[in-house]
Amino acid sequence: MVVARLVQGELQIQEGLSEKVQLGAGLDEENYITPEARRRALECLSRFAQRLQGVPPEGMRIVGTNALRMARNVMQFIREAENVLGHDIEIVAGREEARLIYLGVSHSLPDQQGRRLVVDIGGGSTELIIGERFEPLETESLHMGCVSFTRRFFPGGQSSEKAFERAVTTARQEVLPIQRSYRQLGWQQAVGASGTIKAIGQVCQENGWSDGSVTWDGLQRIRRRLVRAGTVADARLKGLREDRMQIFAAGVAILTGIFEQLELTTVDISNGALREGLLYDLLGRLEHEDVRERSIHVLMNRHHVDAQQAQRVATTAADFFRQIAADWGLTEVELPDILRWGALLHEVGLAVSHSQFHKHGAYLVQNSDLPGFSRQTQQRVALLVRAHRRKIPLAALEELPPEDQLPLLRISLLLRLAARLHHARSDEPLPDTRLAAQDSVLVLTFQPGWLDEHPLTRADLEQEQEFFAAVGLSLVVR
Amino acid sequence: MVVARLVQGELQIQEGLSEKVQLGAGLDEENYITPEARRRALECLSRFAQRLQGVPPEGMRIVGTNALRMARNVMQFIREAENVLGHDIEIVAGREEARLIYLGVSHSLPDQQGRRLVVDIGGGSTELIIGERFEPLETESLHMGCVSFTRRFFPGGQSSEKAFERAVTTARQEVLPIQRSYRQLGWQQAVGASGTIKAIGQVCQENGWSDGSVTWDGLQRIRRRLVRAGTVADARLKGLREDRMQIFAAGVAILTGIFEQLELTTVDISNGALREGLLYDLLGRLEHEDVRERSIHVLMNRHHVDAQQAQRVATTAADFFRQIAADWGLTEVELPDILRWGALLHEVGLAVSHSQFHKHGAYLVQNSDLPGFSRQTQQRVALLVRAHRRKIPLAALEELPPEDQLPLLRISLLLRLAARLHHARSDEPLPDTRLAAQDSVLVLTFQPGWLDEHPLTRADLEQEQEFFAAVGLSLVVR
Repeated sequence: MVVARLVQGELQIQEGLSEKVQLGAGLDEENYITPEARRRALECLSRFAQRLQGVPPEGMRIVGTNALRMARNVMQFIREAENVLGHDIEIVAGREEARLIYLGVSHSLPDQQGRRLVVDIGGGSTELIIGERFEPLETESLHMGCVSFTRRFFPGGQSSEKAFERAVTTARQEVLPIQRSYRQLGWQQAVGASGTIKAIGQVCQENGWSDGSVTWDGLQRIRRRLVRAGTVADARLKGLREDRMQIFAAGVAILTGIFEQLELTTVDISNGALREGLLYDLLGRLEHEDVRERSIHVLMNRHHVDAQQAQRVATTAADFFRQIAADWGLTEVELPDILRWGALLHEVGLAVSHSQFHKHGAYLVQNSDLPGFSRQTQQRVALLVRAHRRKIPLAALEELPPEDQLPLLRISLLLRLAARLHHARSDEPLPDTRLAAQDSVLVLTFQPGWLDEHPLTRADLEQEQEFFAAVGLSLVVR
Repeated sequence: MVVARLVQGELQIQEGLSEKVQLGAGLDEENYITPEARRRALECLSRFAQRLQGVPPEGMRIVGTNALRMARNVMQFIREAENVLGHDIEIVAGREEARLIYLGVSHSLPDQQGRRLVVDIGGGSTELIIGERFEPLETESLHMGCVSFTRRFFPGGQSSEKAFERAVTTARQEVLPIQRSYRQLGWQQAVGASGTIKAIGQVCQENGWSDGSVTWDGLQRIRRRLVRAGTVADARLKGLREDRMQIFAAGVAILTGIFEQLELTTVDISNGALREGLLYDLLGRLEHEDVRERSIHVLMNRHHVDAQQAQRVATTAADFFRQIAADWGLTEVELPDILRWGALLHEVGLAVSHSQFHKHGAYLVQNSDLPGFSRQTQQRVALLVRAHRRKIPLAALEELPPEDQLPLLRISLLLRLAARLHHARSDEPLPDTRLAAQDSVLVLTFQPGWLDEHPLTRADLEQEQEFFAAVGLSLVVR
């Protein structure tokens, strides 16, 4: 956890709290969080929750990464953890994690010309980013981390030469597919940003092998010492904290693989990483530079969405939202954004095929890398896209967390109506329509006579009434 | 069924056979083919099968459309039907059907300048195409047809004014979303191409309301006659065959809706349609103008596939195929194409996200409109993409027809190896490698010493050996 204050537009880090829960190590062979790991995690969170008292919710972000991406019983765990914290937890995809790390690193280093390579070795994933100033250019999240590598290659704590060879080769394999594009782009400085890399840097420094960076020479010396001693503990490396020992050999092996495959000589150390990146991302949202808006437009462009039609539907949906938000108790702050994003993307699936395009669109929204978005938010936007035409998909709704289901159903109805009213894809403005909501009833009122002149809209709404009725809702049109 | 001879590069239609099975009307409320409809269909096919004796398989294509797209028990039906016919049946998507119809129509009309609008009203879908000469420019398949409309609006045979109003409005609603883009593109001639439209044209002609085309005036007269009489039979329309009566009112309503929404005045009649289109498509394949190749490249471009890497992998996979096709009994003629298409598209899912990109790619291949492809072939190519990395997906394989499973598994292994060997995405040519196959064993032999100099390839292949072993296969590398 990190706590910062915003002072004259700058973030001042006030406090950092860190506990070693190793949730990733607490996944069993089928990727369920074990009861023991769950207990460790929830206890840690309940200590952190104390510190969160009084922090306004809009100034807080709580994020889970690889262990929660992997865990099969994640929904249940998240619910318990959110109860302890009293705040939503976001799960971010690997590339989004990489983007946030870069943001944290780039704000923690002196601003300088040229490109940076940033390396962050986590428990189950390793992020590699190339960026320039505050802008990430390439983001990757590789499936290797020091917890998983410890299990695979150094299970009993032995650090043999053979284990190192296998681990380093596997790390190099993971880097191989991105090697060409990364080296083509190039960098002037390489920076490391995780506890693991900091620990290696510290060992290098305290033994006089570097000024604090990780050097190729230092890495080699550490490896030789570990192999000679046979275990990390027996190597008695100066500068290595005891709580770092368990996963240290795996970290050295992964970093060695990255050094070899990308031909690095030195990796500097950054104090900023994911947590600081989250703060700067939040700051961007507060200052109306929300990276999520850009992501939506990138996805729209990539799939050639009819932007005019998307905007028409979004405008009408937002108008409907304003009319009924109070009546329907739609108070959650993110809902208007979710509705707008769903409207902007509701036709994105046409890029795949016209047939069932609402399903293709939901697939794309759910599975695309959308910088700035948590998985849960992507899932909510995907649900809106899925539900915007044809049958109202109650089964898909039920895959959402229980507290999301009713608000999402309700805003999906607004998107449906907005899409129906813009069926003709015409620039002709809609007439003033009034929408009122009560429990399971929506009442849509047109100016007198308008519907008679627009029989297709009337027929559309009649069809919509059938879809509403099929799930126990009621749409009144007058 | 239509039978043609190829005479000096031209198709000469020799024979047309047609039976009214109305498979679409034989779907129950949950879209299962009823036993009665199944019997009707198989009996018809067994009669047709007689006529197919002696036709070489490479000169034959058998295609199912909307009723088979909808039917839930389609796999079982197809298997029975293929047994009766002794030949594969392809199910084509709506847009592919539209493309084939346009091909058939454009070859049956005198070649002329300007754009054509083609309308084909089927039992469960209606295709609308705009094209120029032999090239379709817009293809759409709408969810309305004269069998489904008869059920919905004219169930008891009554042709009331109210039923017409509802049916015409619904038809107009279906056309509404494409109206703008179609009218923007425009056309000089409108042509109709189905039994339904021909029957309407015939009534117009025999009653002296047109010279054989369908005119707006003729349509209005027919509708008035039907409404006045109350049923189609009682209207006693000159020129209407009795076996056309049941679905006639629905056809008139759908065509009226299309006339109104697209502001048509006359629709000419074409004798060519889907069946003739299939013949010309087959002719294209024989003459190396296979529209499928173009579709693959369109999909690659749309999703920015690294074409060089795709081609490298395709070349190596094809080389492997040549080396082991005989040993593994891979004789089916389409397999080398499937393998090449799978190789060209194996990275297409990167357009969605790097994480799980083999699954995203399979989704795109399975669900995209790919002109020239049957659904089954798309499914096979999708399976290759799905299976090209990570665990060998036996569960996905088992969704294929039983006789496809072994050959598809086998070529998927070739694609896996080819992708592994090009892991470094390098232009450096691969060394000569020999591949031998026997039952569940593949033996890959490198030139002496090469693997020792390429430890990452060795490690890659070791990983691959684990994936093979996990499903009872064996990969020997030496």
